[in-house]
Amino acid sequence: MQERSAETRADILASAEKLFSQQGYEGTGVAEICSQAGVSKGAFYHHFPSKHAVFMTLLEDWLNILDRQMQYFQGNAKSVPAALIDMAGMLRFVFQSAGGKLPMFLEFWSQASRDREVWQATIAPYRRFHQLFSDMVQRGVQEGSLQTTNAQETAWVILALATGILMQGLLDADGAAWDEVGKHGLEALMKGLSPSQSETEKA
Amino acid sequence: MQERSAETRADILASAEKLFSQQGYEGTGVAEICSQAGVSKGAFYHHFPSKHAVFMTLLEDWLNILDRQMQYFQGNAKSVPAALIDMAGMLRFVFQSAGGKLPMFLEFWSQASRDREVWQATIAPYRRFHQLFSDMVQRGVQEGSLQTTNAQETAWVILALATGILMQGLLDADGAAWDEVGKHGLEALMKGLSPSQSETEKA
Repeated sequence: MQERSAETRADILASAEKLFSQQGYEGTGVAEICSQAGVSKGAFYHHFPSKHAVFMTLLEDWLNILDRQMQYFQGNAKSVPAALIDMAGMLRFVFQSAGGKLPMFLEFWSQASRDREVWQATIAPYRRFHQLFSDMVQRGVQEGSLQTTNAQETAWVILALATGILMQGLLDADGAAWDEVGKHGLEALMKGLSPSQSETEKA
Repeated sequence: MQERSAETRADILASAEKLFSQQGYEGTGVAEICSQAGVSKGAFYHHFPSKHAVFMTLLEDWLNILDRQMQYFQGNAKSVPAALIDMAGMLRFVFQSAGGKLPMFLEFWSQASRDREVWQATIAPYRRFHQLFSDMVQRGVQEGSLQTTNAQETAWVILALATGILMQGLLDADGAAWDEVGKHGLEALMKGLSPSQSETEKA
């Protein structure tokens, strides 16, 4: 019985994700989610108090996946620039495994710009990603592999590059090899932030 | 009479933009746009065949503004890297003048991921921006200010950085001085792509 309940919950989430991606959050109703998932309204409200709650669950699940990926790459490289360039390879994972889920990413951002609760749920992990990158940049400065006077700003630049490539890949999946673009971008950026460059320059 | 007609058209566009930003495209109806603009449905349909047409007009207007800005910066700098760093200053303009219009940007992307016509209207200028950056990068290589084996890829990196900063500014306007982040990012990137660096490195 519990197993079936978990299955119902998963069906609701998968159906909602599909419909939100295709029609947007505003354009999708609870009735439609139920019909797509093949569950009753009673079953829906047993699992979720509202459409909004379903949306928030999808958002949190998505962010948890990204979080785990980030942690993984952080712990497996010999230097900070190497770790960041490795992370660009994460983009391939995001595009491949997320697949049809990607339009949801846009839906999250779009909702975040007008829904306070979604905004807070989005901004909190986004700032956490920023903090994680700031810490990495600072470690890079300490280990002598990076040079910057403003680690916070540098971290925003890295996050912006990743976000931008994600957006482009969403809009134009076949427009380029987006993981290659990410790698090229991170490499150029790391080179531009490398202290050896500026010292050689001075010499 | 013609003047009043142009005013009505502008009122419809401004009201639609406001409502799309606040409630999303799907969540906004023609009746609501009319009521917000203080115009009759007859007047609405005199100017636009559909809600979709209003959306497309807003999208085209937005892209035309960006286009003009890009052209301006391109013609006013002594080298390609300098022009690109100047363009980061454009972000300040986009944030300041666009103001409340920014949530619309997300709405455009979100709609583009599910509406073929919006997608084509979005992707065409986006690819034009990419082409413009590719041309600039190639000129940079020719003038000896940039080094890259793949100008197309480098152009995507620049565009991704700009898009990502726009997205972050949208989500978290007060989170950072976004035009400064843009400038810092472009400077680091240009430094990483500078041929003098790699030559000094070799020496």
